[in-house]
This record gives sequence, C-alpha cells and structure tokens, in this order.
Amino acid sequence: MSALNVALIGYGFMGKAHSNAYAQVGHFFPQLTKVRRKVVCGRGHAGLQALAHAWGWEETETDWRRVIERSDVDVVDVCTPNYLHAEIAIAAAEAGKMVLCEKPLANTLAEAEAMVAAAAGVPTFVWFNYRRVPAVEFAARLLAQERIGRVYQYRSQYLQQWGPDPNRPNNWKMSKRTAGSGVNGDLNSHLLDMAMMLLGPIREVSATMETFLPEKPDPSKPGQTYRIDIDDAVLVQARFASGTLGSFEASRFATGFQNDNSFVAHGESGMLEFHFEDLNHLTYADMSGEPDLRGRRKVLAPATGPQANPHFWKPGHPIGYEHTFIKSLADFLAGIDVGEPARPTFEDGLAVQRVLDAVERSARERRWIETGA
Amino acid sequence: MSALNVALIGYGFMGKAHSNAYAQVGHFFPQLTKVRRKVVCGRGHAGLQALAHAWGWEETETDWRRVIERSDVDVVDVCTPNYLHAEIAIAAAEAGKMVLCEKPLANTLAEAEAMVAAAAGVPTFVWFNYRRVPAVEFAARLLAQERIGRVYQYRSQYLQQWGPDPNRPNNWKMSKRTAGSGVNGDLNSHLLDMAMMLLGPIREVSATMETFLPEKPDPSKPGQTYRIDIDDAVLVQARFASGTLGSFEASRFATGFQNDNSFVAHGESGMLEFHFEDLNHLTYADMSGEPDLRGRRKVLAPATGPQANPHFWKPGHPIGYEHTFIKSLADFLAGIDVGEPARPTFEDGLAVQRVLDAVERSARERRWIETGA
Amino acid sequence: MSALNVALIGYGFMGKAHSNAYAQVGHFFPQLTKVRRKVVCGRGHAGLQALAHAWGWEETETDWRRVIERSDVDVVDVCTPNYLHAEIAIAAAEAGKMVLCEKPLANTLAEAEAMVAAAAGVPTFVWFNYRRVPAVEFAARLLAQERIGRVYQYRSQYLQQWGPDPNRPNNWKMSKRTAGSGVNGDLNSHLLDMAMMLLGPIREVSATMETFLPEKPDPSKPGQTYRIDIDDAVLVQARFASGTLGSFEASRFATGFQNDNSFVAHGESGMLEFHFEDLNHLTYADMSGEPDLRGRRKVLAPATGPQANPHFWKPGHPIGYEHTFIKSLADFLAGIDVGEPARPTFEDGLAVQRVLDAVERSARERRWIETGA
Amino acid sequence: MSALNVALIGYGFMGKAHSNAYAQVGHFFPQLTKVRRKVVCGRGHAGLQALAHAWGWEETETDWRRVIERSDVDVVDVCTPNYLHAEIAIAAAEAGKMVLCEKPLANTLAEAEAMVAAAAGVPTFVWFNYRRVPAVEFAARLLAQERIGRVYQYRSQYLQQWGPDPNRPNNWKMSKRTAGSGVNGDLNSHLLDMAMMLLGPIREVSATMETFLPEKPDPSKPGQTYRIDIDDAVLVQARFASGTLGSFEASRFATGFQNDNSFVAHGESGMLEFHFEDLNHLTYADMSGEPDLRGRRKVLAPATGPQANPHFWKPGHPIGYEHTFIKSLADFLAGIDVGEPARPTFEDGLAVQRVLDAVERSARERRWIETGA
Repeated sequence: MSALNVALIGYGFMGKAHSNAYAQVGHFFPQLTKVRRKVVCGRGHAGLQALAHAWGWEETETDWRRVIERSDVDVVDVCTPNYLHAEIAIAAAEAGKMVLCEKPLANTLAEAEAMVAAAAGVPTFVWFNYRRVPAVEFAARLLAQERIGRVYQYRSQYLQQWGPDPNRPNNWKMSKRTAGSGVNGDLNSHLLDMAMMLLGPIREVSATMETFLPEKPDPSKPGQTYRIDIDDAVLVQARFASGTLGSFEASRFATGFQNDNSFVAHGESGMLEFHFEDLNHLTYADMSGEPDLRGRRKVLAPATGPQANPHFWKPGHPIGYEHTFIKSLADFLAGIDVGEPARPTFEDGLAVQRVLDAVERSARERRWIETGA
Repeated sequence: MSALNVALIGYGFMGKAHSNAYAQVGHFFPQLTKVRRKVVCGRGHAGLQALAHAWGWEETETDWRRVIERSDVDVVDVCTPNYLHAEIAIAAAEAGKMVLCEKPLANTLAEAEAMVAAAAGVPTFVWFNYRRVPAVEFAARLLAQERIGRVYQYRSQYLQQWGPDPNRPNNWKMSKRTAGSGVNGDLNSHLLDMAMMLLGPIREVSATMETFLPEKPDPSKPGQTYRIDIDDAVLVQARFASGTLGSFEASRFATGFQNDNSFVAHGESGMLEFHFEDLNHLTYADMSGEPDLRGRRKVLAPATGPQANPHFWKPGHPIGYEHTFIKSLADFLAGIDVGEPARPTFEDGLAVQRVLDAVERSARERRWIETGA
Repeated sequence: MSALNVALIGYGFMGKAHSNAYAQVGHFFPQLTKVRRKVVCGRGHAGLQALAHAWGWEETETDWRRVIERSDVDVVDVCTPNYLHAEIAIAAAEAGKMVLCEKPLANTLAEAEAMVAAAAGVPTFVWFNYRRVPAVEFAARLLAQERIGRVYQYRSQYLQQWGPDPNRPNNWKMSKRTAGSGVNGDLNSHLLDMAMMLLGPIREVSATMETFLPEKPDPSKPGQTYRIDIDDAVLVQARFASGTLGSFEASRFATGFQNDNSFVAHGESGMLEFHFEDLNHLTYADMSGEPDLRGRRKVLAPATGPQANPHFWKPGHPIGYEHTFIKSLADFLAGIDVGEPARPTFEDGLAVQRVLDAVERSARERRWIETGA
Repeated sequence: MSALNVALIGYGFMGKAHSNAYAQVGHFFPQLTKVRRKVVCGRGHAGLQALAHAWGWEETETDWRRVIERSDVDVVDVCTPNYLHAEIAIAAAEAGKMVLCEKPLANTLAEAEAMVAAAAGVPTFVWFNYRRVPAVEFAARLLAQERIGRVYQYRSQYLQQWGPDPNRPNNWKMSKRTAGSGVNGDLNSHLLDMAMMLLGPIREVSATMETFLPEKPDPSKPGQTYRIDIDDAVLVQARFASGTLGSFEASRFATGFQNDNSFVAHGESGMLEFHFEDLNHLTYADMSGEPDLRGRRKVLAPATGPQANPHFWKPGHPIGYEHTFIKSLADFLAGIDVGEPARPTFEDGLAVQRVLDAVERSARERRWIETGA
C-alpha cells in the first residue's frame, strides 16, 4: 500500500501528541504502511500555523468539511473538543475515510451509537492511549496467561489536582455542552477502557458524582466568576461480567497527585499494580511462590526476558507519555495491513460510553444501573 | 489514686496486645495512675496459663461472671470474640466497673445501643488502636490546624490477603453468629473510626458487600468444607456531614497486601496520606508552597519539631504495632486522672456501629442509607 | 537458674533502651532465665531517679565501683560514655560478673584488647543491636542458604543529619577524649558489625574522614563556640576476606535522612537490601527466576512462611527500634542457658575495633591499611 | 542559517538514539537551525541499511574518511566504539567540521588532549546525555540558586547488572583495546560529568577497580571462554575544589538494578536526590522549613511553576530516555545559533577524562591522586 494521507482535525495538546505519533511511527515501526502528514485543520490561525510548521504538516485548512471532501485524504483524525466528535466522525466515515477519534468517543450515548452506525464500513479507532503503556500491555498478557488466576477485585483511580486552582482559565472542558461531562468522560473513560480491555465487560455500576466548586473566579475576567455544570469527581462501584468486584475513582480535586492513572488487580495467585507516574514499571506479587519471599516487586516493563517487546529502546531506558500514541498508531496501521482492526474501535468506544452513561444515571437516581453488557 | 486492678477477659492475640499495654504503660507514662495485672480470664486452660505466666497476670479465672463479681477488680477489659462483648460489658458496667472493649463494639446495632445505655455511669473505652498511631495523631492535629483547608475527598482502605488461603483454619471470625460480620466489623470499623475522628460524622453511605468464597475446604477436616456467611470485601461511598466525599474499601482478598490500613485526605491547600505498612511516616503535600517545589513528602511521625511527642523513643527510632495499644491505655488513664473520658468511648463505638449497620443495609437494599448522624 | 540480678551503669537514652529490654524480655521470651532490674547507677541525681522510677529498678547507686563489688549483682551492663567502657567493663569482669557493653566496645584498639583479655573468663556481649532487626537476621539466613550466591559487592550507609544543627548542644559525643571518634565509632561501627556478621572478616580498607564544621556555636553559651575534634563523616572502601568488594559511608551531615542505616548486597543470583527507615521489610531481587518478572520486591520480615520467627507479633504487625534490644538480650540469655555465648561477644567487638582503627590510620596515612583479619 | 547537513558515523544503539534526536529536534524546538540527516556511515551492511531506512538518512557510506571529505557535510557525529573516537574526531575537526562525539571522549587521556587540540577551531560537543534529564537540569538550577547552601557530601552511583549474565555476547565493550576501560569510561564518566556540571571541578581521588570475572564463557562459542581485561566495578572517594566530599560507584555487577544512574547532594539547607529509574522526579528535602513537616519530597521535573520548562509535554506527562538526546542536540544548535558553545564541549570531556585517568592511576597505585584541576 502506498502512504496513507492523514488529515488532523484539531491542533491543541492532543494535536501535538498525534502529530508526534505520525512523525515517529515510521521510525520505530519501519515495516508498516507509511503515513503522510497531509493537512491539519483548525480555526485558530496562529496556533494552527505553529503546529503545522513545527511538525511538518504539508497544508493547513480552517474548515473541516473541506478536508473531508478531499479525495487525497485517506485518514481523518478527530481531536477537537468532544461536542464535535460525532458530527465530524460521521461525516468522515460517510465520505469513506478511515476515522480515528480522541476519547471519549462522544458527548452522549446516542451520539456514540450514531457514530458506530455511520462508521460500520470503515476502519475506526479511539485514542484510549493508556492501554498502550508497555506495563499495561504486559499486565494484559499476564492476565491472559492466567498468572494471577481468578481476579477477585480491581481498583482503579485517575487522580489530578488542577480543579481547585484559581488561576486555571475556563475552557471547553468545564461545560457540559462542549465536554459532555467532567471527569467521567475525561478521566474515568480511560479507567473503564483499561479495565474492560484487561477484564472484559462491566455488568452494573453504582456511582456518585460531585461538583465541589460549582462557581469559580474567572482568572481572565477579574471580579467575575463562571459556573461549572460538570462533575469534579466520580466514584464507581462495579461488577464485571466475570464476577470481579470493581471500584473506580476519578478526580480533578485529588491534591497531591498531578496525573496518576493507576490500577490494582487482586487475583487468587497474584497481584498486578500500575501507576502512570511510574509508567516503566509493573508491580507484581506472586502468591504461588515461596511464602517467606513473597512481596510486591517492581518489574521493568517492557519485560526483559522472552516476553520483551522493545519497540522503542532497550529495557532500562524509559519511554514516556508520547510513546503510548506512537504504539496506538502502529497497532492501527498493523491492523489495516492485515485486515483485522486494532482495538479500541468505535464499537469499543461505544462500550465505554454505555458504562459512562450508566454511571451518570446511577449517580442521578442513586441506585445500581445495569449497563446492558 | 492507688493502682487500678485490671481483669482481662480473653487471652488470644488481642489478650497479648493488651497485656503488653498494661505491662508497659507505667514505663513510658510513669506519671499516670498505675495498673495492676490482677486476673486474666478464659476457657482454654493451656493458652490461658501461658499468657498469665508470660505476662505476669497474678491470677487466672475461667468464668467471667466470677471475675465481674470480685470487689478487688476496678477495670474489666473485654477482648473475647465479638458475640460476647455485649453480655460481658453490660454485666461489668452494671457491677460498676470501668469497661474497655475490643472493636467492633458489638455484633449488632441493638447490642451496641444496650451497651451504651448500661454503661452510662462508668468510664468506657473502645480499642480502636489505629487512631493512636503517632502519624494518625499528627494528621489529626494538622487537620485541626486547618493545614490542608477544606477536605474535598477522603479515601481509606484496609487491605489483607488471607481470605483465599486454603490452609487458614475456620474460626469465630468466619461466622456471622460469632463475629457479627466479616470485614465490615473487623476492618472497616477501624477505617470508619479513624475517618470520623479526623473529619467528623458520616451522613450517608452507599455500599457493596461480597463473599468471594462462600464455601472453603476445612484444613482441619480433610475432604470437608465449611460454609462462610460473612463478607470478604466491602466497598463504601460516603458523604460526611462536613461535605467531604468519602470512599472506603476493606478486604481479606486483597492479595499482595498483608495488613495495609491507609487513608488519603485531599484538601484545598494540602494532602495527607498514611499507610500502616509505613506507620512511622505521614505523607504530606503542601499546595500553598512554591509551585516548582511541590511534591509528596514523607514526614517522620512523631514530628521532630515543636509538635514532637516522643512518648516512646526519639524521632528516627521507629515504634511498632504494640505502641498503639500502650498509647490508647495511657490516654484512657489520663482521662480517668483528669475526669474527662478519653475517646473513643462506647458512645463513639456506637457511632461507628451505626455506620456499619447502614453499610449492611445499603448493601442489602442496593441504595443510599442515611446513618442518622 | 534463678533470676539474674542486673546492674545498669548509665541512665541516658541507652539506659532507657536497655531498661525496656530487661522489662520486656521475659514477656516475649518466657522460657528464658529471668532477669531482675536490681540496681541502676549514675551520677545525675534527678535523671537517675526518674529512670529508676519509670522502669522499676529496685535501687539506685552513684558509684559504679560499689555496684561491681556487690555480691548480689550477676550482670553488669555498661552504657556510659565510651571513654568509661574499658575501665568499668574490666573491673566488672575481674569481679567475675557477666558484662554487657554498649558499642563501640572501646575508645581505642588498645582498650578493646585489654577488655577482651580481662573478660576471657566471663560471658560478654556488645550491644550492636541492629544485627537483631528481623530483616537483618533474615538476610543472614538467606546468605547462609546461599540464596544470592557469591556476593560481588556490598554497600552500606548510615545517614544522620543532626551535624549542622546549630541548636544541638555540645556533649560527650563531640569530643575525641570522651567518644574516641565521631561517626566512625558511633555509626560506622554498626555498619561494620552487620557487614562482618553477614559476610565475614574485612581484610583491608581505604578510608577518608572529614570534619565539616570544626567549630560550632554553643547553643548553651550565646556568642561562644566550641571546637570539634571528631569526624563528621567517614567513607570506606573495603575488601572482605571472601573477596567481596565493600563500600561504607557514615555521616551526621547527610541532610534529608534522620537515621537511615542501610545495606545492599549484590550477589550472583540475587540482591538483598535493607533500610532501617523501613525495618519491617527486606528487599530481595531474584536473578535466577523468570527473567520477564524480575524485580526488587519488599518482603515482610520477619518472614511469613516456614522461616517465620514471630517472637513479637504476627507478620504484618510492625515492630520497632526497641525490639532489637529485647532480641539481643534474649539471645544473650539463651546463650547463657545453653552455655554457648551469643554474638557479638567482646571478641567480636574487638574485631570491629580493629577495622575502626584501620579506618582511622588509612584516613590519616591516605593509603590502604590491612586489618590483620 | 540554512539546514546543517549531518553525517553520523556508527549505527548501533547510539546511532538509533542520535537518529531520533536529529529527527525530533525540529519538532520540539522549531525555532532552531534545522538539521538534515544527510549520511550515515558504518561497516555492517544490513544494520546500516536498516537504520538508514527506518530513520530516513538520505545516503549511506561505508568509509568514514570519504564522509569527512564531503563538502556537503557540516556536522560529523561520532558514535563508533571508543577506540575510533580520536582518529575520526580529529580528522573531522581538521576538515573543519563541527564534531559531536559519544562519551567517553577517548580511550586515553593523551587521545583526549589531542582531540581538544585538533578541534580548537570548531564547535564540539560530547554526548553526556544524562545531564539533560529535566530533573538534573532542575537540580543544577536549584544549586545555582543556593537552595541547599554549602554542599557537604555528594554520592553518586551507576548500577547495572548485566556483568554476570552468561548469555551476554562478547563485544567491543569488554576489551581495553577497543573500550579503553570498563565501567570507568562507560558509566563513571557519566557520573563525573554530572557531578562536575553540578558542583565544579574534582581535585583529587582515591579509587578501587575490580574485575570480578576475568574469564567468561563465550555464548557464541560453546565450551570456550574469553578473557576480560577491563573493570567490572569502580569505587571512588573524591574531594571537589569546592570542599565537597564525594563518593562514586559504578558497576555492571550490581544485581537488582537495570540502569540506575543516581546522585544525592547533602547541603546545609537541603538535599537533592535523583534516580534515572524515576527520571521525571527530583527528590528534595528542605532543611530550612518548618521542622515538624520536613521530609523528602518527590518533585515533578520539569517543574510545574515559574521554573517550568516544558519543552516536550505538560508536567505530569513523563518523558523518557530519548529526550535527553533531543535536548542535548537542541542546546548544541542553540549554542551555534548564538555563537556560544553549549556544554559539554570537548574541553569538558577532557576534564572528565582527566578524572577517569586519575581514578585508574589511583586504583593501580593504591593512593590518592590529584587530577590537576
């Protein structure tokens, strides 16, 4: 296959992370189909030009509809604010493009369903990048190998602390209209995708959502405040179809923690623990080994033995945040090459959206809600 | 006041922990009223004699009723299996004795209420020892000084791993009749007592309880099993009267963790974190300090400056599990000496029991339950 | 054997630590010969009386010579400033007493040799308490079992931070006359004793000693300073007779660390690491296990399987500083009971003193010095 | 300035790390002079082609002399085995090229001196990449700001574990002829460069070097062994010109540690600690703050406040190994742009080489050696 021409819609922090993935994937994975940074699209002139210049996008565009109409675009990558995902992705899919979309898939369950329907005939992908951390991929392999046996409990947290910061400007993430939700879609969606990748579907949830500061001073308008209608924290109790008992917690008010996405899986013959703050290690406890020498051990990930997958550098040479995007893209391209779609597809994104929706309903109705899975 | 004569009812692991406290309190707190290890009472002959011999109890007794009738006994300390707490404590209180009781206060809320009623006229105390860890006492002082401001979220976990162990013998802790509950009373009660000591009453809860292995092989009867009717794990979402959002988790199936009682409090100007696995430190993050140098720091506890309270050894010379009992007893005796009861009293134990009861009802009815606090 | 009557010479911080050991050893080790806190001796009236009162010493005495003359004293325990060790211990041994002595054994090598000679006929013991930390005892067992194979390197550090503190009063530890040396005798002696217990004799050393602040303000005499003629830090490179390469570092100027006594042993098939700041764990890495799952693991110590030795409490219930003294005394008493002296004896203390002496000479002469071992 | 044409000599692991830097520097630092991956040179056909293909080098070449003769090459980057550094770098400098060279600068002090002499007229750079870790750069700023005051002690270790691995093939790193030395040049050189960048020149050293396994089985020739004439471990005691006392340790036999490059600086008003295993954090202790709340804190680096330098991603989004090379190159290019050479230049590499040489002499002569600095 000749190189795929990519159109990137959006040029914020995610635009940079995706640009890097497009620039780097061919270096670390030279055997895959090539990608060409064809056009980047956005409405803010200066920022758009800066991104295009720094990251080598061949052209810029300000109207996403024109991008989608171009016959020389093969792939549309949506990293706009959440409320635009559905409209753009559906249009792109209907134009026959491959569609990659930032997470969460959509603002609402209805939108997500429409996206899946519209994209039935094209390759799709959702950028739940954290499941591509080597330590998380390693945990998935160990679970598949039944190294820790039946998983009794799974506990997962995404802790950030910028919520109370009075200097933080208001932006699209602070409004239900543009973001769909607060931490539920922004952070909890990552936790749920990882959990379901590792342990399968979630059957039911019982959740609480909280807005700690419904009104905040607006740092750009001295003396004025702005209202916040999204959730600052969410707590979830869950039961997986497998019988595992789950608990999830996502917060932007978790002072002391900058960006800690973590999980612990307690299995009958072992434990696995991951923290994004220490992404190059997976913590493992072996309950089947010599009792005197049991303990939680920090294992280098990627692994250093037969299971090693040093796509990037040798073990002991840490990788970082950006590599999760490069590996996501590599897997997407490999899926195209072999005709088997890489996950998470839009279907997987919809499965997450169903749980996000159940979480919201549970919090509102103060009772357990079944996800339908 | 002359020395108080103590009668200890029960001689298991807690009997040893309490015996040590009686033996040591006068050494580390020589200014307090003395205690005399007068009589220890229990039904197992050899174990009882061994405890009495090792720890210097002057006499042994096999019938707790006779102990309570003795006029030369001032203090009755109940550390029997849970189902006997109420009967013994009520009888002791009615006989005018000071009464100390192991946690949880009772098997049921009704029993706890009867105990409080019966003990209205005597000094009482519940051995929630973990609130006496120096790091926890230090956290309480920092919270009272408003060092971390409004507390948005509080997360607390008690993780043990012996649940799936096939070699673990059946005992009174595995039956609802004798233990009242599983981890809810055994572990979650500790979490709730610490939480309410630090942050005040809990207004409502939403809980899940789980029994992972309702039937287990009986290691003492090859080929046979025994049934388990208590909870192996409990998850709780909670709202404090203060507005803090809480989450609690207690488990005996948390493989990888031997005995980790922990909490994190996220406040607007700081964070506090404690782990019993590392009991000589309190982790603190200061959100008001220089942004470039923010970070979670492990502070030696007891503190090393003006707030230092080196009851035991100098800072940097770790204390252990047993010191929480010695300090509990010291505070009880100091309360007697000044006529102001040390906490947790039976009233405090009842407040915990109300939450434990709400947790059980919530798990059963699958909805939020108010505690009445 | 009837109870041994103990005379304690000295009543400072070590006097308290030893008093606790005498009070507690019979509780945790009831099968051993009993000890009786007969008499405590010292020159400071109020402090002496306070210690005697708190810890139940039957009598007090102000002249150590009278104590040694008493026929009702079986054991003399020396915890005076270092410069008095030799004189008192020799007199006690010549009077036929069992002699226990705080570390380092003596101010000089010559004194230590005289002490060994004088005490040839009586049981002796040196309070190198850190080798009795359960995690260190566990490490010794693992080394004896050749779990980590040939030990290539051993690295050990004792880090304290009070050196630069301007509020710290001058005391006997700050003068060569009374203390013999600074960190070499005070801290490095502990490291050397542990190292030689674990790995055998040290053959040669190359060392550096440093006094960072030879003159300090005297907090008790405003405007005045006092001179310091002892070492604030010592660095040692060493070769063990076994071929292991060693490095040692002791400092009172290691800001950031209150009292961290640590070692790491790198063996061909594994690694062991210990930190007194986390004394209830031993860190272990297994180089012979599955390569993919290698990692440093924190193992609970005392162990929780067949090698468990829960003299004190169950695994997961931490012990502290004081238990190292209780276990030292228990082993001393057990040695008496079976007629096989517990180590470290005065001979072992002399072996440490030989290395301390070689370290001083090496630092002075700026070359490698053989210890004679 | 138009783009600089780069010739890369060498195509091993370092060739990949440098290729990535050339590919990425313009993305993260778009304001700098551009670099063009013109030609990569090496003798192994397949590996060379693979690197060129993956990383987009325009041409390949097998003779480095021809590369240097090319008028369209502006920059020569030497990442061959050590023994070729001098010859190639000198020839390149004499041809008027800018010269970048992998570390250590040379096999011997004489070679390093010749390189500095030959390159006097051209921009030079040594790839001591670890000093570009954001946490290390942050430590340097804090030291320059005198945040921790006078530095009493500095302790630095580089721990690797592959030495005893019987499956490790023999290569140029295992021979004095091709590598110059073992861990001294390979690992200790990194430690020394970081130390001197942070604290200034080292005046004298006392060192020990050890070869644990002078003969090893050759995995590629069953039944045969190969001899090793380089050092497996090196220990150094050092005095800086500033008066700081230093200790260094580098080893390939430090089982349990994959690639841990670390330092601790103990200053009168604070401590700084870094571990490459956790490269996105700098540990800091503030001795000037409130005594009760002192503790070692893990600070996110790059910093999150006014000192933040998020060249790559936002704080909380970890960077990895490769970014140290990108930042090295960016600084080199910025130096070219402003006419002020970035450090470490060849002069700085020579200063390290002087200490490496003194270390070797000290180990051989078993005495302190002055470095001449």
